[in-house]
Amino acid sequence: MFENRLRSLRSKFDDLGVDTVWIIQPDNRRYLSGFRAVDGHLTESSGSLFISLDQGILLTDTRYTTQAEQEAPGFEVITHKEGVVNALPEIFDRLQSRRLGFEAGYLIWEVYQKAREKASQHSPPVELIPLSSLVEDMREIKEPQEVEILSKSAQLMSNVLSKVIEELRPGEVEKDVAWRIETLIRQNGADRPAFAPIVASGLNSALPHAIPTGRRLEKGEPVILDVGAIVAGYCSDMTRTVFLGEPTEDLKEIYRIVREAQLTAIESVRPDMETTEADSLAREVIKKAGFGGFFGHSLGHGIGLATHESPTVGPLKPKILQEGMVFTIEPGIYLPGRGGVRLEQMVTLEHGRARVLTGNEDFYFF
Amino acid sequence: MFENRLRSLRSKFDDLGVDTVWIIQPDNRRYLSGFRAVDGHLTESSGSLFISLDQGILLTDTRYTTQAEQEAPGFEVITHKEGVVNALPEIFDRLQSRRLGFEAGYLIWEVYQKAREKASQHSPPVELIPLSSLVEDMREIKEPQEVEILSKSAQLMSNVLSKVIEELRPGEVEKDVAWRIETLIRQNGADRPAFAPIVASGLNSALPHAIPTGRRLEKGEPVILDVGAIVAGYCSDMTRTVFLGEPTEDLKEIYRIVREAQLTAIESVRPDMETTEADSLAREVIKKAGFGGFFGHSLGHGIGLATHESPTVGPLKPKILQEGMVFTIEPGIYLPGRGGVRLEQMVTLEHGRARVLTGNEDFYFF
Repeated sequence: MFENRLRSLRSKFDDLGVDTVWIIQPDNRRYLSGFRAVDGHLTESSGSLFISLDQGILLTDTRYTTQAEQEAPGFEVITHKEGVVNALPEIFDRLQSRRLGFEAGYLIWEVYQKAREKASQHSPPVELIPLSSLVEDMREIKEPQEVEILSKSAQLMSNVLSKVIEELRPGEVEKDVAWRIETLIRQNGADRPAFAPIVASGLNSALPHAIPTGRRLEKGEPVILDVGAIVAGYCSDMTRTVFLGEPTEDLKEIYRIVREAQLTAIESVRPDMETTEADSLAREVIKKAGFGGFFGHSLGHGIGLATHESPTVGPLKPKILQEGMVFTIEPGIYLPGRGGVRLEQMVTLEHGRARVLTGNEDFYFF
Repeated sequence: MFENRLRSLRSKFDDLGVDTVWIIQPDNRRYLSGFRAVDGHLTESSGSLFISLDQGILLTDTRYTTQAEQEAPGFEVITHKEGVVNALPEIFDRLQSRRLGFEAGYLIWEVYQKAREKASQHSPPVELIPLSSLVEDMREIKEPQEVEILSKSAQLMSNVLSKVIEELRPGEVEKDVAWRIETLIRQNGADRPAFAPIVASGLNSALPHAIPTGRRLEKGEPVILDVGAIVAGYCSDMTRTVFLGEPTEDLKEIYRIVREAQLTAIESVRPDMETTEADSLAREVIKKAGFGGFFGHSLGHGIGLATHESPTVGPLKPKILQEGMVFTIEPGIYLPGRGGVRLEQMVTLEHGRARVLTGNEDFYFF
């Protein structure tokens, strides 16, 4: 698996004009090597991959040496003592690097400046070449075994959420519901939640990314539940909006519009379609119904090792949808001071159309 | 509170040669404004602060507009529709910016390039000035109310960990212990764990940042428990190494050395001491005992809104310790193939010396 990915990466070196690439972003490192450590610093002294046409080095610090050797057997592990940048000259020598590609969307300004200094002072000098979303683009198209794990992650999350929704009652506190979801995610075999569950009731549902509060659920109000799990490293992400009892007519109306927007997108997305077109399929439904101003975010996003990854399925930055992609479809309408509705499914493009990975949604309307 | 912090920030503008600063790093944003959203992308389209001498703008996207208005009443909230960079010209006009300071340790290369282009094309042109750890340095010294919250966070975590350790028995699985810790952290009123608890037993204890596995705890082995909670936004971080039953003599010896190294540092650290000297106080104890090669990480790190923040208390990059700082003291010895010991306390510098915020540690030795 890693060998195939490295082969694919190396096949791009010529076009990119690089002889070595430097990978720091944790999900990208994991994708190419299996190394899972994350130290939470942008400088990620926990690990950098340096990949030339015929060698692979994993540079780490003493905290992670043993883990690196265990998890990334395809890489030579080198432990730095004085920071990543100070180890660059040794790496350049070992890999005979002259043109080093770096992650333009991850390397921070300060580290870039220091690295450039080391590179230009090196003999022979090394040129730094910015690479935009090199590994991120590779990660967009999932391998069959990745789709299988993502499907498991989605299924686990769907089962947990169904159970929680069945038992949901007025009077419960948002935070408690969120905690029950987290507990069930763990107890059902996930690594952990993909993100802190969102449970947003009443007026809070008008906040697309509300943090659960001490508020109690009330009858007839919308309750948005936006949740995800990580299973074997792969994320799921889904949203349901439920009403505990009969909602008002205007909330029903909004629900129907959002649901129609979502179904329209799910039924119409195809490989070779632009992401912007997929977005506008759903957006047009909401616009025509007169709520265009209340759907502020993108229709969806790729999902895999990260909850949010490439491609973004939104009104900007067109990309071509392709067979094997896995992404969310999550239109929403948010009326400040009144409440909101968001519905989110995870789909994969398979045999020319979308297959929904998360569970059935009709059940959730009242 | 925010007003004082902004006043302090603005008082540095002259020396830094800037008339506006651009703050993206989520903890820094929260520190200066109260705005808590995090969208998990480095580009943080969820929010940027732009602070001039007399104005403050919080630039966000539609997902967070309402939250921004609620949480950051001291800032004017502007919602961008086409990304942060495309909104820069409007911000420059509103703030009359000519010299924009940016976070050199956070802004990624790609965003910097795009921002610089907008800035240089603007009329009048705006110069981008790199700022190194401007807000991070301010955050090093805690205000009294911050020390109080950090102390609560440390106390909550200590109480939870004492309880877990009292009930710890051979045969239990690392992952289950980690999960029990997480559960108790929540049930005792924390926002959430500060990081995934580390429970590393037997040979796993030789990995300074082990991930809990399905391994069962055995008698006499070291079990490292490295845990933290977030209370009202502020993190705690502490580590205990316990033995379930009598350990071998060499593990006892290592424990005694690590404990001595830690106590030496706790008793000797003072305001005006360099962080590198604090580190070497403990490191010398371990070196003299012959284990210098097995303590690979720094002695400690600042802690506050982030689990790891400035200053690093390590052998590199000296900084001056100051009254009001809160940091960890966590020496360790890790013997590959045999096991390890790490002990970690959180301290604050108060009345000229260290006060330990986390609980008593003697209890934990057998």
